[in-house]
Amino acid sequence: MIVLGIDPGLSLTGWGVVEALSKDKINAIQYGCIKTTHSAPLIERLHVVHDELQSVINRYKPEVVAIEEIFFLKASKTVASVGQSRGAIVLTVSMNKISLFEYNPRCVKIALTGYGSADKHQMQHMVKTFLKLKEIPKPDDAADALAMAICHINSTKWR
Amino acid sequence: MIVLGIDPGLSLTGWGVVEALSKDKINAIQYGCIKTTHSAPLIERLHVVHDELQSVINRYKPEVVAIEEIFFLKASKTVASVGQSRGAIVLTVSMNKISLFEYNPRCVKIALTGYGSADKHQMQHMVKTFLKLKEIPKPDDAADALAMAICHINSTKWR
Repeated sequence: MIVLGIDPGLSLTGWGVVEALSKDKINAIQYGCIKTTHSAPLIERLHVVHDELQSVINRYKPEVVAIEEIFFLKASKTVASVGQSRGAIVLTVSMNKISLFEYNPRCVKIALTGYGSADKHQMQHMVKTFLKLKEIPKPDDAADALAMAICHINSTKWR
Repeated sequence: MIVLGIDPGLSLTGWGVVEALSKDKINAIQYGCIKTTHSAPLIERLHVVHDELQSVINRYKPEVVAIEEIFFLKASKTVASVGQSRGAIVLTVSMNKISLFEYNPRCVKIALTGYGSADKHQMQHMVKTFLKLKEIPKPDDAADALAMAICHINSTKWR
């Protein structure tokens, strides 16, 4: 199973592609970040998000996308930015007829570390361990996206 | 000039197509509403918004889209819903290579009534007057979308 994890944002969208043969055999295939220019018009920024995400989908052909739920406690301006980028991302996934699963940050923490209050460093360390990487993936948004993909794999029933 | 006005939402997106020969000669071509089911998954709802908006674009071939800016003072859950729908709408407009203009609600009120604190009824009445309609367009979201299109026409320099 190839899973694409996404940590959505307007300035930075983290993505991470992971292949799972079983719950214990998970490999990172590739990860990275989609960046948009703050001063560019919204329509251009969303087009960049769509275009680069489409390239990732074309290249790695994920069967599933796992995306972070919107965190409502943030300032409404942040929610608006993340929300609009997330809308463009979800539409892109839909156009590619890929299944979408949404996970809230607390679920992801529990899936990776066993408790819902894990800090950023603990999470990144577990991403490195799960994927047997030599270093913690950078930037943070890519590590968060890989965590999302691992969470989906851990939440899936395996025969 | 054919302008498509949009009042974005996740449950209801109002749209209105207007043709302007000059600032004083504005005709309503068609208007309506895109509805999505509250209980449906987000990915399906955004797909419906995209699909129906694409049909409107195919049918009326607007040269310009005018859309309402996000109103940040609303609850962050509302901002998240409107934001995600708005992201899918803006991406659809971008894919069709149509110019997008954003207007805040206060600007729209000033453009239509001359003052920024006009109430809903005054706005709807002015939409009816500008477009020489027999009745106020329903639902409210469609009237708001027509107001957005009229605002764009009034903000445009005519030779």
